[in-house]
Amino acid sequence: MLITFEGIDGSGKSTQATMLEQRLRKKGERVLLVREPGGTELSERVRSILLDPGVHINKMAELLLFSAARSELVEEVLVPALRNDTIVICDRFTDSTLAYQGGGREVAARDWLEAFNRIVTNGLVPMRTYYLAIDHAEAMRRRELREGGNNGDRMEQTGTDFYERIISSYDDIAQTDCQRVMRIDGRLPVGEIHDLIWADLDELKVEG
Amino acid sequence: MLITFEGIDGSGKSTQATMLEQRLRKKGERVLLVREPGGTELSERVRSILLDPGVHINKMAELLLFSAARSELVEEVLVPALRNDTIVICDRFTDSTLAYQGGGREVAARDWLEAFNRIVTNGLVPMRTYYLAIDHAEAMRRRELREGGNNGDRMEQTGTDFYERIISSYDDIAQTDCQRVMRIDGRLPVGEIHDLIWADLDELKVEG
Repeated sequence: MLITFEGIDGSGKSTQATMLEQRLRKKGERVLLVREPGGTELSERVRSILLDPGVHINKMAELLLFSAARSELVEEVLVPALRNDTIVICDRFTDSTLAYQGGGREVAARDWLEAFNRIVTNGLVPMRTYYLAIDHAEAMRRRELREGGNNGDRMEQTGTDFYERIISSYDDIAQTDCQRVMRIDGRLPVGEIHDLIWADLDELKVEG
Repeated sequence: MLITFEGIDGSGKSTQATMLEQRLRKKGERVLLVREPGGTELSERVRSILLDPGVHINKMAELLLFSAARSELVEEVLVPALRNDTIVICDRFTDSTLAYQGGGREVAARDWLEAFNRIVTNGLVPMRTYYLAIDHAEAMRRRELREGGNNGDRMEQTGTDFYERIISSYDDIAQTDCQRVMRIDGRLPVGEIHDLIWADLDELKVEG
């Protein structure tokens, strides 16, 4: 069972991913939580390049670096864990590529990126994706609270239009892929969001 | 004018690329020689990951890392140089992907890789490619002479079958893309190979 969390920075997805991990663990489940890009030596090396404001990275190279990290993560970590009956929770996955590189950077059309994602992940698709939807203004407020007005890393040094395109891509994915993606209002209280997710997972397991 | 050199390690392509660069420079041409992966900050960072035997990199991730470095090199270095009437010489380019990742690692079919290469390079194709053909045994002899029996880096730590597949891919490319690729017997004396290349370029210029 692969569960992914998606949304822009500040949407609360990392908080929710951690809450879900802990609750599943308390229930006695084997759980693995990973964040993208990360989770392997290669991914961490790639992550440090991506977050370094001193390295120029064009749009296509950015897509390829994220995808290289993901390919390694899928093959070396996710697939073995899933085979071992572990519930895998990913903080970001393929939809981040569609939203950020496709929508935000406009590096390629969604169709092409979806086909490319399938090759990179060797066909691995999340069973459920929780998309925490907030608008850009709300994300900015939360980031300022969190970071006290820091400059932010490379991915965050971009304008409002960029984030608007990302949000609209996420909304689009949630609409067209509604069997897999559950859109949740990210302004709801943290506990309420967690309960929605927990109830949904319960239902999924009953169905499965 | 983009000229690329291809062949397995030890084929003499770097020597020939340098000889060509120097001769063109003496003639008063603006010349830029780059090696792949390299030539930009990103490419050097990617190169150091690729050559680190301590980092596990699956086949697909390897393809994506090489391609990320190439995308950045094309956009930031090659295209601006070519626009500035500089003759660009690349020590390895897209055919290395077809031969190493396609033939050697069998990561994807040649068709798919060719289409992928076009996207990564934004359609930039060499005007001429010199493929220095030697067999694996000869390459091994040369490498041992050069390195005194070193272990070699990550790309070199692979068996004979791997190199046979790479060589056969290169031969295949030279046959099917014979308008662009000139196959040269890499066992010929260094000066003779250089003369062949020089004569060919002269002819190309007359034609152009």
